[in-house]
Amino acid sequence: MTASSWPEAPARTAPRRRGAVLERAILDAALDQLSTVGWRDFTMEGVAAGAQTGKAAVYRRWSSKEDLVVDALRAGLPSFQQAPNLGSVREDLIALCLRARDAMFSRSGFALRSVIHECDTVQVERLHVLICEKLLAPTTGLLREIVNRGIERGEVRASAANDYVYDTIPAMMMYRTKMCDSEWSERDVEELVDRLMLPLLRPDGT
Amino acid sequence: MTASSWPEAPARTAPRRRGAVLERAILDAALDQLSTVGWRDFTMEGVAAGAQTGKAAVYRRWSSKEDLVVDALRAGLPSFQQAPNLGSVREDLIALCLRARDAMFSRSGFALRSVIHECDTVQVERLHVLICEKLLAPTTGLLREIVNRGIERGEVRASAANDYVYDTIPAMMMYRTKMCDSEWSERDVEELVDRLMLPLLRPDGT
Repeated sequence: MTASSWPEAPARTAPRRRGAVLERAILDAALDQLSTVGWRDFTMEGVAAGAQTGKAAVYRRWSSKEDLVVDALRAGLPSFQQAPNLGSVREDLIALCLRARDAMFSRSGFALRSVIHECDTVQVERLHVLICEKLLAPTTGLLREIVNRGIERGEVRASAANDYVYDTIPAMMMYRTKMCDSEWSERDVEELVDRLMLPLLRPDGT
Repeated sequence: MTASSWPEAPARTAPRRRGAVLERAILDAALDQLSTVGWRDFTMEGVAAGAQTGKAAVYRRWSSKEDLVVDALRAGLPSFQQAPNLGSVREDLIALCLRARDAMFSRSGFALRSVIHECDTVQVERLHVLICEKLLAPTTGLLREIVNRGIERGEVRASAANDYVYDTIPAMMMYRTKMCDSEWSERDVEELVDRLMLPLLRPDGT
């Protein structure tokens, strides 16, 4: 079947446009709910009220809370596709951490963290898959890119290209945000890079 | 006032012994509840049922859920006072991580994690203080001891004695347990030490 044999898409009409606008309003209200009341107190009723619509309008599009949350996070989380490329591993890591910090403290970051903290991964497998796809895998990808560029430049030892090293920044950011209420000032980020990451990455001195 | 001027403690009688036994049963049931249903679904009724006593017996001793949970965790969490001292930083770190892993996957470890994940630190300030006192500060103390012994031996660079380095192991253990469902096999722990901690700690090669 060639593309031209597909039935032509109907012209967009006012009601369909309103539908898309309403859909965005619902996804938006869902992120709002999630970032304020958390996953467990999240209700379809609350979302409907937030989007100034009826419960039926929400259920027509998403049959469960889980479906709606997956779509809201998918739409709301930023995509990190480009690693910073500022000429040194230090500058690249600082820039990446600051970007991650801004995402963590955004509305969708709060929403995501409520899911991470309140959901059991086994219970809500689809949310776990989403987190891996949207958050963990891209973050590892960017760190790998920065580390590999550092290896090429001779700034980083070759054996640093491993998953334990890539996980160190997200682990520290999650841990200190949760356990120490850190808000990751620019100075905190610089210290993380200077005291932990650069000694970890530096060449073997051979 | 000297010790001898204190009124003499009354001899222990059967009813008081029963009281202490009942108290332990309640604390035990509280840990059980916490590790199975979590902080938010934790109820005084559930604890009373678990301890095979009445709600009044629980409330007579603890006026709130928070008071009871603080005492249950304080009684149930192991005290880490002695750092392993096996002759090398590698062996010491592996032994400490395995001990931490066993604690994390014990009943009181599950109970504590439900509190960490479900409680906002600001909401439940006393629980946060308890976590710092019973968990974070002692862990940092043990890691500091291991790192400092390594520095004395020449195995570790002097500048590694800093809080970012001490937080790396708890951060990684929390992150991978939560995000990757890691159960920290002996092999995982060895890899953490060999791929992350030893490169981070090794002398500057100067």
